[in-house]
Amino acid sequence: VAERRRKYWGWGYEDEQPAPDELRATAAGLADHLGFGDREPEPAVALADVKLAPPRLETPYAQDTWSRAAHAQGRSYLDVVRGLRGEFPHPPDGVAFPGSEEELRGVLDWCGERDVAVVPFGGGTSVVGGVDAIPGPGHAGVVAVNLRGLDRVLEVDPVSRAARIQAGATGPGLEAQLAEHGLTLRFYPQSFELSTLGGWIATRAGGHFATGTTHIDDLVESVRALTAEGELWESRRLPASGAGPSPDRMLLGSEGTLAVITEAWVRVQPRPERRRSATVTFPDFAAGLEAMRAVVQAGLRPANCRLLEPEEARLTLAGEASAGGEASGRDRCSKALMVLGFEEVVEPADRAFDLCRAHGGEVSEGRGGGSGAWREAFLRAPYLRDTFAAMGVLSETFETAITWERLPGFVAQVKAAAAQALGEGSVMCRVTHAYPDGAAPYFTVLGPVRRGEEADRWGRVKAAASEAILGAGGTITHHHAVGRDHRPYYDRQRPEPFAHALRAAKAALDPRARLNPGVLFDAR
Amino acid sequence: VAERRRKYWGWGYEDEQPAPDELRATAAGLADHLGFGDREPEPAVALADVKLAPPRLETPYAQDTWSRAAHAQGRSYLDVVRGLRGEFPHPPDGVAFPGSEEELRGVLDWCGERDVAVVPFGGGTSVVGGVDAIPGPGHAGVVAVNLRGLDRVLEVDPVSRAARIQAGATGPGLEAQLAEHGLTLRFYPQSFELSTLGGWIATRAGGHFATGTTHIDDLVESVRALTAEGELWESRRLPASGAGPSPDRMLLGSEGTLAVITEAWVRVQPRPERRRSATVTFPDFAAGLEAMRAVVQAGLRPANCRLLEPEEARLTLAGEASAGGEASGRDRCSKALMVLGFEEVVEPADRAFDLCRAHGGEVSEGRGGGSGAWREAFLRAPYLRDTFAAMGVLSETFETAITWERLPGFVAQVKAAAAQALGEGSVMCRVTHAYPDGAAPYFTVLGPVRRGEEADRWGRVKAAASEAILGAGGTITHHHAVGRDHRPYYDRQRPEPFAHALRAAKAALDPRARLNPGVLFDAR
Repeated sequence: VAERRRKYWGWGYEDEQPAPDELRATAAGLADHLGFGDREPEPAVALADVKLAPPRLETPYAQDTWSRAAHAQGRSYLDVVRGLRGEFPHPPDGVAFPGSEEELRGVLDWCGERDVAVVPFGGGTSVVGGVDAIPGPGHAGVVAVNLRGLDRVLEVDPVSRAARIQAGATGPGLEAQLAEHGLTLRFYPQSFELSTLGGWIATRAGGHFATGTTHIDDLVESVRALTAEGELWESRRLPASGAGPSPDRMLLGSEGTLAVITEAWVRVQPRPERRRSATVTFPDFAAGLEAMRAVVQAGLRPANCRLLEPEEARLTLAGEASAGGEASGRDRCSKALMVLGFEEVVEPADRAFDLCRAHGGEVSEGRGGGSGAWREAFLRAPYLRDTFAAMGVLSETFETAITWERLPGFVAQVKAAAAQALGEGSVMCRVTHAYPDGAAPYFTVLGPVRRGEEADRWGRVKAAASEAILGAGGTITHHHAVGRDHRPYYDRQRPEPFAHALRAAKAALDPRARLNPGVLFDAR
Repeated sequence: VAERRRKYWGWGYEDEQPAPDELRATAAGLADHLGFGDREPEPAVALADVKLAPPRLETPYAQDTWSRAAHAQGRSYLDVVRGLRGEFPHPPDGVAFPGSEEELRGVLDWCGERDVAVVPFGGGTSVVGGVDAIPGPGHAGVVAVNLRGLDRVLEVDPVSRAARIQAGATGPGLEAQLAEHGLTLRFYPQSFELSTLGGWIATRAGGHFATGTTHIDDLVESVRALTAEGELWESRRLPASGAGPSPDRMLLGSEGTLAVITEAWVRVQPRPERRRSATVTFPDFAAGLEAMRAVVQAGLRPANCRLLEPEEARLTLAGEASAGGEASGRDRCSKALMVLGFEEVVEPADRAFDLCRAHGGEVSEGRGGGSGAWREAFLRAPYLRDTFAAMGVLSETFETAITWERLPGFVAQVKAAAAQALGEGSVMCRVTHAYPDGAAPYFTVLGPVRRGEEADRWGRVKAAASEAILGAGGTITHHHAVGRDHRPYYDRQRPEPFAHALRAAKAALDPRARLNPGVLFDAR
């Protein structure tokens, strides 16, 4: 089977990239919409012109330029900027594509015998430096292990509504196979198109659904993985257990440092048949927050419940508003916007709408809160970033979570810190996930940037925002993971004895620290 | 403040024990009801007649007989049988009652300097040998640390609906303090009256509520603990996070082996104002199971949804039925019985009732499914066990969880294995917790037993049941924890690499293995 090749520096597949004219038209339109950015996009360096450092060693794995470039880094804004310019500072020395767990074991053995580091690679969509192929001190090199060959739904249990799925299955790949059984995982991170089940579990990914089961954590019934030394880690299929600390919860969030996840049993469901949704406008963000809190604290569990600042609604939802057939975005766009949807259990929707009205919301039922236009816009967003990178627009996001009583001041503080570091441009906030005791604010940064100054400019914004988040009690990430980018903040956030314990666990499973060195832990 | 003293061998407090005549009348009634058991209860050995091994060392902590006996073991059936007869094979050498985290640190230091093991002691209600004061090899002795002095609600956040509560607060203790703020944790394990927040977290306790948030795990926002060496482990207050593996999830289920929990922020709520509930009778258990699965798989999330076999309903709910004012238990008692209740989000109740009817259920609304009579009976049950122990009735429970597709065969297999090992008597099943992908069967064993043969008889039943559970893919415990009793099965259940990792974590935090030696891990 010929594999569809991924674009080696940005989002998506090679065969779906826009022609130069089309790209130019998009850039012009975006520049008009934003009021900044170059109408003439910078051309990407052609693959043939990409120069990579030679491999540190010969491997039996792929060593061609596409393979090494495409597996050299994730897809953060700075990764995309570098890739556009043909810069891949950390290419792996080889890229393995095991077709089975046994072949994976063979790769682990080969690397183990030579003290070669291993970077497990799912969709490669990390935005936090989670898959850079950087060896630890003393390692002979790095092999990236792309798990796309393990992409099957192996077993379906329609009675318990669970499926055994290989780690390398992408969102669309596993959904297509589940659809044959009338089932769906219904887990939609923004990277859905490219990212994989194994990557979701390794990074505790968060999905589109905004309350209740927000993270993959709660959809995992059991996990199967191989340690660096090829030992099998497999938990039992259980709906719940109280036998000691949860083994699955140690792998969830381990980011490829403790074991390579090969498959998991996950909780699935039939496609929902009942839906009720609405867009709600609020006079301001604060009123929307109060309504959001009221809805989740009443236990109503909408499937979707997101709140956008007026500026963010205006800038990022313009496309969605017209796609969704809304008569006019003008009125909405001076207001905070909530998308609110119920699936399957729709009975509580009326009470949620009433709670919104009680907080000054105008409820327009049947619009936007569901999984149609909104989800499409959500999933299309990563493509835009490649264009922004090429047109001198700094475009990045960061996210966190905090309890309600601190949230309004926290958002203001973090926005101010980021905006001050940014200078010209915008820092906008939406709340993407809501819980009875708090919520997850998500920040989008857009601004003009001179070519060559991206890393410096974004670095200052990210540092200022991260310091503000840590200082005000938030988490350095709600669902983007730690990788390398968040390490300094993560190290301050995690309880020190837990860090000791985790390091000891790491040393026991991977004494040469060969699995994803530098992520979560110091490399050696 | 004069502390109410706990009964040193069984359930409850000294000041609420029945007079001899009353006890005799209860025993006679129970013997009539069961058809076996001695109408003349065995008298408990008086505290003055209890002989304990002398302490291994002098300690500055309590060394009187009550203190040492009351902290020598938990409250399993065999613990109660032994205690009734004045047998306390593993009394601690001293019992500390720290009044603050600083005093706790002092106790840990004192023990650390002398290589004395420490058993953290909350309510002491373990039914799995989780608090036996057994030193590891080389330890100079054991100090039990009763945390009842840390029993305050320290802070309440009404906006985020969370409270900071000390680990030693009992269920009634913390509820009384929360009630002053119009709030409640609404977490009701059967041990509610005596057990503590810290114990719940350490053992991943499961509560009365049967779907959704069944375990304390999901109510924990952050945890604060001291390691054996006095290092502070404190996680941030977060509604959710994706920053590495969850630190709280490592303490949840650690059973006092990694750190001594001193306080936690937990999610609370106002007392619910809306309720709908019903009892539903089904022609048989299988139909009830199908209905239960339909209700949870539809996402309806009842607060309570339990299913009892006809025999269990007859034997254990007779009291409740009359207390609840039911006209007649006769008809119900040939049928499987479901208690089904919704709280606060009551809109989906109609659909749940319809689903029950579609599976042959007869729905009687306004009865039993709520939190009134049913909860009272549930919380009263542990008192009965002291009486059973005294009247030669073997009375114990065990529990597990399994996915739906295996559940009916699994229950039959486990019951058969336990019944065969039991001989005369009954093994009954109820399903206490239901999830979209499975449920938690809970087994009650009742039978006549000759005095002195309890340990042997129960040991055979427990071994047969545990082998059947493990062999058929269940978990050795859904919410009773591991302790010492489940160790052999837990060791087989947990993934081997996870065991390595956890042992390494333990060694890093507690190199002399002084915290609760023998629980979860080998003692040294």
